[in-house]
Amino acid sequence: MRATVMFGAGDVRIETIPDARIIEPTDALVVVSRACICGSDLWPYKTMEHSDTGRRMGHEAIGVVEAVGADVRTIKAGDLVIMPFAYSDGTCVFCHERLHTSCIHGGFFGTGPMDGAQAEALRVPQADGTLFVLPVGKDDALMPSLLTLSDVMGTGHHAAVAAKVAPGKTVAVVGDGAVGLCGVIAAGRRGAEQIIILGRHAGRIALAREFGATDVVSERGDEAVERVRELTGGFGVHSVLECVGLEDSMRTAISISRPGGAVGRVGVPQDETMPASRPAFYNNVTVSGGPAPVRAYIEEILPDVLEGRIEPGRVLDRVIRLDEVPEGYRAMNEREAIKVMVEI
Amino acid sequence: MRATVMFGAGDVRIETIPDARIIEPTDALVVVSRACICGSDLWPYKTMEHSDTGRRMGHEAIGVVEAVGADVRTIKAGDLVIMPFAYSDGTCVFCHERLHTSCIHGGFFGTGPMDGAQAEALRVPQADGTLFVLPVGKDDALMPSLLTLSDVMGTGHHAAVAAKVAPGKTVAVVGDGAVGLCGVIAAGRRGAEQIIILGRHAGRIALAREFGATDVVSERGDEAVERVRELTGGFGVHSVLECVGLEDSMRTAISISRPGGAVGRVGVPQDETMPASRPAFYNNVTVSGGPAPVRAYIEEILPDVLEGRIEPGRVLDRVIRLDEVPEGYRAMNEREAIKVMVEI
Repeated sequence: MRATVMFGAGDVRIETIPDARIIEPTDALVVVSRACICGSDLWPYKTMEHSDTGRRMGHEAIGVVEAVGADVRTIKAGDLVIMPFAYSDGTCVFCHERLHTSCIHGGFFGTGPMDGAQAEALRVPQADGTLFVLPVGKDDALMPSLLTLSDVMGTGHHAAVAAKVAPGKTVAVVGDGAVGLCGVIAAGRRGAEQIIILGRHAGRIALAREFGATDVVSERGDEAVERVRELTGGFGVHSVLECVGLEDSMRTAISISRPGGAVGRVGVPQDETMPASRPAFYNNVTVSGGPAPVRAYIEEILPDVLEGRIEPGRVLDRVIRLDEVPEGYRAMNEREAIKVMVEI
Repeated sequence: MRATVMFGAGDVRIETIPDARIIEPTDALVVVSRACICGSDLWPYKTMEHSDTGRRMGHEAIGVVEAVGADVRTIKAGDLVIMPFAYSDGTCVFCHERLHTSCIHGGFFGTGPMDGAQAEALRVPQADGTLFVLPVGKDDALMPSLLTLSDVMGTGHHAAVAAKVAPGKTVAVVGDGAVGLCGVIAAGRRGAEQIIILGRHAGRIALAREFGATDVVSERGDEAVERVRELTGGFGVHSVLECVGLEDSMRTAISISRPGGAVGRVGVPQDETMPASRPAFYNNVTVSGGPAPVRAYIEEILPDVLEGRIEPGRVLDRVIRLDEVPEGYRAMNEREAIKVMVEI
């Protein structure tokens, strides 16, 4: 079968590799219909050292179950499923606490020995806990939005949860990438009164406004902080969704938080230390967030997608075939595309 | 009048200075009955550069109101009052949100031009919002415990609130100083099932056990992390009270937190950056806390003190007179005393 393999920074190839197969009795074999390229895939795309064996890529998919292992109970061949970026057993203490990304028997696709989703098929461990069976056909027009429930929309939602977005609150979203844009949707879903997007890319900002952003701050650094304060009566916002993961973006996030506010961070931190520890402390700013337990959020968000109240699939502004994945990485890396969908 | 002035590291003196007086119509003049030396006073005691004018010290007091300004409405001469370490108007948006340490018209005693409490008297701004009138006499046997409501007990409580301590939760307290010991009390008050104290000072550990600690970890660094995991089924604790403020203690706090857990930090951070940002992220550990809005907590904790259910005053294990304050600093700095009470 064909699959995406990264061999080093800027070196993504479609390779013919041995077919995916069931190994454990709790596995499912999923034939991928649609996958994505993720902003987090761009970190290795920028920095990965050369590897002769390469790394399988992709962790977001909708697909059809081809076969299941002997111990799989609730998933069956023919099911159309959302595959969240993390696999989880659905039964451990952390899954019961709705933190599936810390599942005791869980892990992440496209890391270590795990298959990647930018491929014709892949092995899905813990199929019963991991996969979510969709009540629609695989060519449904909602497919792009449903695909975002595998990661990016759930991640934006997680940022909003971690940042304690609630009705009437003021919110800022740091980052106008696909996660930030989904964060705008999530903040609106949760009743935010004011949603300030920090970003400067015209097309993305326009989409953010359609998603419900009420204000745009295109400045950076101290000027951005000043501008957010002006927009919020001098105090900063109750909730900040940090959707980048860089030191500067985190410093901005803490600096625009109102005293007693919260930063929900979902951008994978690129540094060992967190900046602005003292300002966060003196203002009693809470910093929360991490890998989003998107499996826990699908049930909650799905009705809004099925009934058309939100359209997170609009962040998938370029559609390619599997052979074009290397070009998809380039386009996302150069910010020509917000987020790329791969139709397999 | 006499007051404590710090002129540099290790150089604390009792000086005769102009009498405290009312300046603003919202001020009260308070004659101090009892004050404390705070762990946070030891940071300048260790590091302050020499100053010819010096810095007024002390921010915790119980005293008697001597006079009030023309605009003071609820406080009157003769009232016995708790003076929290921060002054606050009680009416601004942040005071209404119960975050008095971010009061728009507030500030901190013993900083900048503000009077200090290790003195015969001091000026208290925003008297109506700041001071809490006690329903007991000034020689009441409960006075040490009541005095802790001006800072250390409220600060331990804040750590427990920020760390989301709740009935049935597992808790670790990093630091066996006065704040950590009050954190043990606070965790018990909030129904924690297991309270692990990290510390190694025999006398303090014994007091922690009397306050409700169920386990003691005297190891440090990685060994402490390993030990806490052993005590918690391998997962770490739900809630960590970080009561030190150093890089190592913060790293330990994050490392012993269970996935999805929370660190409530009240130790003033001594570094610009926070360590272990990535582990906190990957485990979805929340970091919260800051200067405790102790004014907001007095009403809640006071009944437990008045009715003898908690005895935070036991952390005040040395009582001195004002003249002995320099010796009190030395004793606390050398860890001979947990916390020093000054009877004026």
